[in-house]
Amino acid sequence: MNIVLYQPEIPQNTGNIARTCALTETNLHLIKPLGFSLDEKHLKRAGLDYWDLVNLSVYDSFEQFIEKNPAAKLYLLTTKATKFYHQINYDQNAFLMFGKETAGIPEAIHAAYPENRFRIPMRNHEKARSLNLSNAVNIVLYEALRQYNFQDLI
Amino acid sequence: MNIVLYQPEIPQNTGNIARTCALTETNLHLIKPLGFSLDEKHLKRAGLDYWDLVNLSVYDSFEQFIEKNPAAKLYLLTTKATKFYHQINYDQNAFLMFGKETAGIPEAIHAAYPENRFRIPMRNHEKARSLNLSNAVNIVLYEALRQYNFQDLI
Repeated sequence: MNIVLYQPEIPQNTGNIARTCALTETNLHLIKPLGFSLDEKHLKRAGLDYWDLVNLSVYDSFEQFIEKNPAAKLYLLTTKATKFYHQINYDQNAFLMFGKETAGIPEAIHAAYPENRFRIPMRNHEKARSLNLSNAVNIVLYEALRQYNFQDLI
Repeated sequence: MNIVLYQPEIPQNTGNIARTCALTETNLHLIKPLGFSLDEKHLKRAGLDYWDLVNLSVYDSFEQFIEKNPAAKLYLLTTKATKFYHQINYDQNAFLMFGKETAGIPEAIHAAYPENRFRIPMRNHEKARSLNLSNAVNIVLYEALRQYNFQDLI
C-alpha cells in the first residue's frame, strides 16, 4: 500500500503517519511544498523518530509524482465524494491520497479522478468539520489492509 | 459507542480523540490522573477546540468508572491479546478502552477482562513498537462503527 500526502502542513501529523507507515510496511509519498523541514535535526526535535524506518519518496509537484508513478491507482479523500471509504474495493497496491490539513486536494486533481474519490462517515458539525489528518489516513489505510486480511502483518 | 482513555498523558492525543468523538457522537470517558489540565484556558492554548462538542465524563479512578458504568461491556487494547480488533463483533454500546501512551493498561485490569482483549495488526519493529494512541483509537472505533454500517452517520 501507499500513502500520498499532498502538501502536508503540520509535522506532527506527517510524523504520526510515518510511524503508521513504518509499522505496516506502507510506502509514504510526500508532495511539496511541505509545511516543515525534512532536515534530520528538525525532525528529531519535533519527536519524529520514525523517518529512517519508512520507505519515503518526496516530490517537487503533483506532476512529478505522476511522472515517477505513472501506473499509480489513486484514491482521493474528499468531503465531496458520494462513496464512503468502506464501500471501495482497494487495489492491493493502492495509492491513498490526502490533501493538506487546511484545504484538502485542489479541484484540478479531483476533476482528473472522478471515479476513485471517497469520504469518511461523520456527523456534520458547525464547529468541527473534519477528522485530524493523521486519524483519517489511519482509518482508511487500516480498512484497505483489512480487505487483504493484513497480509504479512498477522 | 464509548471510548475510555485510562490515564492519558499527551493532550494532543486526547484532543484529537475528542475531535473524532464529536464527529461520531461517541461518548468519551477519561480516567484520572491525566497528563494535562482540563482547565479551559489550558485546552484552548493547546488548540483543543472540540471539548465543548463532546459528551465527556471524567473519573478519579478505574473503580469509580466501573461504579458509574456497572453494565459497561469493556474491550481492551493490548499487545498481549491473541484476537485482532477486526475479528471482534462489537457490542453496539461498546466501551473501547485504551491505556496510557507509555505503559498501556495495567495488569490487574487486564486480568479481569481476559475475553475482550484485542490488538491491532502491525509489524514488529525494534524501534517502533506501537501506533500513536489517537490513531489506534480511530482505527478501532471506525471498525466498530463500520460493523453497524455507520448508523446515523451516513
